[in-house]
Amino acid sequence: MTPHEPRGERAMIERIRTLLPRAGSDVLIGPGDDCAAIASADGGLLLLTCDVLVEDRHFTRASIGPRDLGRRLAAVNLSDIAAMGGEPTHALASLVLPQDLAPEWSLEITRGISEELARFGALLIGGNLSGTGGGIVADLTLLGRVERDRVLRRSGARAGDAILVTGALGGSAAGLHVLAARSPEAEQTHAAVVAIHRRPRPRVREGRTVARSGRAHAMIDLSDGLATDLAHVCRESGVGAEIDLAALPVLDETRAAAAALGLELQRLVLSCGEDYELLFTADEADAAEIAREVEAQTGTRVTRIGRILEAGRGLRYVDAAGNAVPKPAPGWDHFG
Amino acid sequence: MTPHEPRGERAMIERIRTLLPRAGSDVLIGPGDDCAAIASADGGLLLLTCDVLVEDRHFTRASIGPRDLGRRLAAVNLSDIAAMGGEPTHALASLVLPQDLAPEWSLEITRGISEELARFGALLIGGNLSGTGGGIVADLTLLGRVERDRVLRRSGARAGDAILVTGALGGSAAGLHVLAARSPEAEQTHAAVVAIHRRPRPRVREGRTVARSGRAHAMIDLSDGLATDLAHVCRESGVGAEIDLAALPVLDETRAAAAALGLELQRLVLSCGEDYELLFTADEADAAEIAREVEAQTGTRVTRIGRILEAGRGLRYVDAAGNAVPKPAPGWDHFG
Repeated sequence: MTPHEPRGERAMIERIRTLLPRAGSDVLIGPGDDCAAIASADGGLLLLTCDVLVEDRHFTRASIGPRDLGRRLAAVNLSDIAAMGGEPTHALASLVLPQDLAPEWSLEITRGISEELARFGALLIGGNLSGTGGGIVADLTLLGRVERDRVLRRSGARAGDAILVTGALGGSAAGLHVLAARSPEAEQTHAAVVAIHRRPRPRVREGRTVARSGRAHAMIDLSDGLATDLAHVCRESGVGAEIDLAALPVLDETRAAAAALGLELQRLVLSCGEDYELLFTADEADAAEIAREVEAQTGTRVTRIGRILEAGRGLRYVDAAGNAVPKPAPGWDHFG
Repeated sequence: MTPHEPRGERAMIERIRTLLPRAGSDVLIGPGDDCAAIASADGGLLLLTCDVLVEDRHFTRASIGPRDLGRRLAAVNLSDIAAMGGEPTHALASLVLPQDLAPEWSLEITRGISEELARFGALLIGGNLSGTGGGIVADLTLLGRVERDRVLRRSGARAGDAILVTGALGGSAAGLHVLAARSPEAEQTHAAVVAIHRRPRPRVREGRTVARSGRAHAMIDLSDGLATDLAHVCRESGVGAEIDLAALPVLDETRAAAAALGLELQRLVLSCGEDYELLFTADEADAAEIAREVEAQTGTRVTRIGRILEAGRGLRYVDAAGNAVPKPAPGWDHFG
C-alpha cells in the first residue's frame, strides 16, 4: 500500500498510523507493510492492499489510455501482493470519473483491470462508479493469500544478508521521461522503455517462488525507488544496508534513453519509482540458490546488489572497487 | 456497493457488469448486490464492499467536517454489510486529498472512519494517502462475514411477501435541504434532521437480527431512495411491489422541516436517498415476529409498508383507502 509517497506525505502517513490498531487478535500485519494481513480460517493469511491512481498526479490522459490505465492499476496492486509472497485472488474497483469523459473509459479501465488480474488468476468481482467535477481517480482493493509460515515482510532483514532484486531498474523512469519529452521520434526510438513505463509487470510468480523457498528474510516491491524502498526495509528491520552501484541491473535500452535525453542514469535507477521489481534479502549462503530457482521458474533474472549491515550503519553506496560514494540526489516528483 | 447511482450511471454500470465474472467457483455473489461474497474457509461467506465519497458530488466542505466525513464514509459501507445480514470486520481506506487541505483533515477523516467502524466491532487496518489537484475523494473497502445459510440478497423476494423497513424515511433528505438553505436559524430549528443527514446510522445490528431469524427473503439498504432501491429488489427478484403511502414511517421533525421549507414530503420519503434504513421482505405470517425481534434486540422500530406482487405488476403505490395513486416524481440529484 501507499506506493506513491512524495516526501511530504510520509510524515502524515506516520501520524495516521498512530491512529490505527497495532497488529493483534486476528490482525497479524497492520499498517506499515505492503499489505495488511488477517488470519484466515484455513490457517493461512488473507492479504489486503489498496492503491489508487490519480490523474495529473500519477498519470495524464495524454500519457496513458484507459485500457493501460486499468492494467497499471491492477499491476501496482498485484505488486503489493507479490511483495508479501502472496497469490492474488479477488479485487474491487472504485472509479471516480469526470462527467465529460467518454463513457468508453469506464469500460476500458474495467477491461484493463480484469485482463491484468486474470494473468495471475485473480478476479474483479465488484466495485462502484461515481462522477466527479475533478480528474480521474481509480482505486483498487486487492485480496490475496499466503501461507502463514511463508509470508515475507519488510521487517525480516538481518545483518549479513545479501540484497537481491528481480529484473532491471530505471526503465520505467526512463520511459516516463521519454513521454514527457513529447517527441514521437523519441517515443519510437525508445519504445522499449516507454513500454516498460506503460505496462509494469508485477512480479507475482517471482515473489511466490522467493516465499516458497522458505529461506528469504524480507521482501518489498520497488514502487518508490530503490533508495526509498530499501530505506523502508532498513527502518522496519532495524538494520543498515550497502548498495554496490556497479552491480545494479540496468537494461541497455534504459542506458540508451538516459544518454539520449541527458538524464543521470544513477538517479533513474536509485531514486525514481515505479519499477515494480522485487527486492529481497537472504543469507549469503542461500542467495544464489534462491536466485537460480526464481530464474528457473519464471525466466526473470535475479541480481545481488548489496548486503544488509548492522543497525546504525545507515544506507550507503559503494563503487566497483568497494569505495564509499556520496549519497545520490533525491528523486524527481512524477510531474514536479 | 454503487450507493450513489444517478440515472445516467445505471446503464454504464450494467455494461460494466457484463465484463465481470458471473458468480461461480468461490465467488458466490458477484456484482449486482450490496456486497460481493466469496466462500470463506470456515464455511461462511466473506463479504466485500467499497463505497466512495466525492467532494461536490456527495458532500461539500461547507456541509460536513472531516471527522463526520470519515464517519459517514464508514457508515455507508457498514450499511452495505448490514444489507446482507453481515458482521463488518476489517477495512482499508484510500484518501485522495487536495494539496491545499489542512493536514489535520487526513487525521480527522481517519479518526472518524475508525470511530464509526469501532461502534460495530470493525477495524481500519490500512490504506493509502495521495495528493490531488482536484477535490477530496475518500474511498473505503469494508470486509464482513455472514453465515452461508443466513445471507440476504436483493433477489429473494417472493410474491405475497410483506415489505418492511427499519426506522424512518426522508429525514436525511430533509436535513440536506435545510443545509442547502444556508440559514443558521433553519439549521438550529431543524437540528434533528440535519443530524440525521450528517450522521447516518447504519443498521448493522438490525440487519443481523433479520438475517439470524432465518425467515426473511430479501434485503437491501435504502441508499438511493425507497423507489429506486425497491425497484432493484423487484428487478433482481423478478417481482412487482405495492407501497402503502399512508404506512411510510416519517418522523415529526421531518414533516416539520418539509413544511417549513416548502418541500413535498412524499418526494423526500420516496425519491431521495441516504436514509440508510434497511428494507426487507418476509412471509406475511413471519413479518410481525421478525419486526418484534428487531425492536426487542435493537430498539429500532420496524414498519410494514407494503407487499410484494407477482412479476409484471411493476411498482405501484396505494393510498390509505387502498386506491392506486400516480407514480411519484423522480428524485432530486444531490446537488442538481
